Amino acid sequence: MVKDQEIRIHELKEKIKDFCDRRDWDQFHNAKELAVALSIEASELLEIFRWKNPQEVSELFNDKNKKEDIEDEMADILYFLVRIAQLYNIDLTEALDRKMDKNEKKYPVDKFKGSNKKYNEV
Amino acid sequence: MVKDQEIRIHELKEKIKDFCDRRDWDQFHNAKELAVALSIEASELLEIFRWKNPQEVSELFNDKNKKEDIEDEMADILYFLVRIAQLYNIDLTEALDRKMDKNEKKYPVDKFKGSNKKYNEV
Amino acid sequence: MVKDQEIRIHELKEKIKDFCDRRDWDQFHNAKELAVALSIEASELLEIFRWKNPQEVSELFNDKNKKEDIEDEMADILYFLVRIAQLYNIDLTEALDRKMDKNEKKYPVDKFKGSNKKYNEV
Amino acid sequence: MVKDQEIRIHELKEKIKDFCDRRDWDQFHNAKELAVALSIEASELLEIFRWKNPQEVSELFNDKNKKEDIEDEMADILYFLVRIAQLYNIDLTEALDRKMDKNEKKYPVDKFKGSNKKYNEV
Repeated sequence: MVKDQEIRIHELKEKIKDFCDRRDWDQFHNAKELAVALSIEASELLEIFRWKNPQEVSELFNDKNKKEDIEDEMADILYFLVRIAQLYNIDLTEALDRKMDKNEKKYPVDKFKGSNKKYNEV
Repeated sequence: MVKDQEIRIHELKEKIKDFCDRRDWDQFHNAKELAVALSIEASELLEIFRWKNPQEVSELFNDKNKKEDIEDEMADILYFLVRIAQLYNIDLTEALDRKMDKNEKKYPVDKFKGSNKKYNEV
Repeated sequence: MVKDQEIRIHELKEKIKDFCDRRDWDQFHNAKELAVALSIEASELLEIFRWKNPQEVSELFNDKNKKEDIEDEMADILYFLVRIAQLYNIDLTEALDRKMDKNEKKYPVDKFKGSNKKYNEV
Repeated sequence: MVKDQEIRIHELKEKIKDFCDRRDWDQFHNAKELAVALSIEASELLEIFRWKNPQEVSELFNDKNKKEDIEDEMADILYFLVRIAQLYNIDLTEALDRKMDKNEKKYPVDKFKGSNKKYNEV
């Protein structure tokens, strides 16, 4: 976990911006197209787990090639998420903090400890 | 963009782990369930842009409430992505670096500059 | 199951075409937008099952309101699928027959009986 | 459009049930797993249109191989949708009729003619 201990999302934004600038891809990257791409990549991650039971899901992480497939799909998701944030001046860390504050209220510990219910089911 | 410049990915993992630990949610959070959730959240982001043309998509970002809706969905995506990484010991920055190296080769600048083609279409 | 035994797919196309014609929606309904909508509706169906274990999934079908929610999402999926077929002159039954012939070969009974493997995993 | 003029959803259910029975797949096919599969297939349909502008989307339907790819993904979506309906005794035609009645009220012609607004935006 060395790199995740060093790197900030701001640095990922810079790296991804540079990658796209060199290809002149701003013209294709509006928020809707990027959300389409993000949704497709999220589905490709899920596809790896399709039909698998919990035991089989665990075993995928012990298989070097399968683990790399999983990490590649997660990287694609991160890439498109950060790209939207970079293009539309969104502070992802700030957005996460605010959303988690909302979730603290939607899912108070005393009501949701050990529960898989949705906030509107309790 | 203050927080994206300050906070490391590792710290997001810690924060999310703490949120889930206090609710005793490890029992529900295997990779497949989290990928289901991630896919649903990605789709909820896309839903905000449904039926909108490029002009209408742009205008959403000028509407304070709509922008917060967008940021909330992006936060949910980040939350589940980081949660998988935290539970399965995945270094997201490392995964992104490796995937972007692959993409440098799949999408060489001289062939894909200004192109919206997929790597297997050129 | 009375109506599924009486109504032909062609009649569903006619009904949906009439619904959209009266609203003058052809202008918004190209295949990509409809595929976005279809993907969102599929995700909304999945959302109903999120975090649920198999027992809890079964119980949803015994709850009249929940069952209607499930059926409504399935109807939305069918609506967009048939709408694409109607607009682009696709015979869904023919497409299904051809695809199932392919799947007969990809998943031969002697190799895949009782197996949850994907065709490229065996 | 010959087959869609003859075939009813009931007959698709029978065909798909037979396909799955011969493979003994009931054990893997609960509603949640099938909704996961449906969501993945909907995303694979969308993937064909990724990055394409409206002109490029149209051209895909003039390319015999691309059109068959599109039809194959639509067939996969239909397969999983009908499979859920078959296993859980859902009348898809009835569900569609009821949902379209709701949509007649949510989207009255006089308010939504020529409009791409969502029902809660007007």
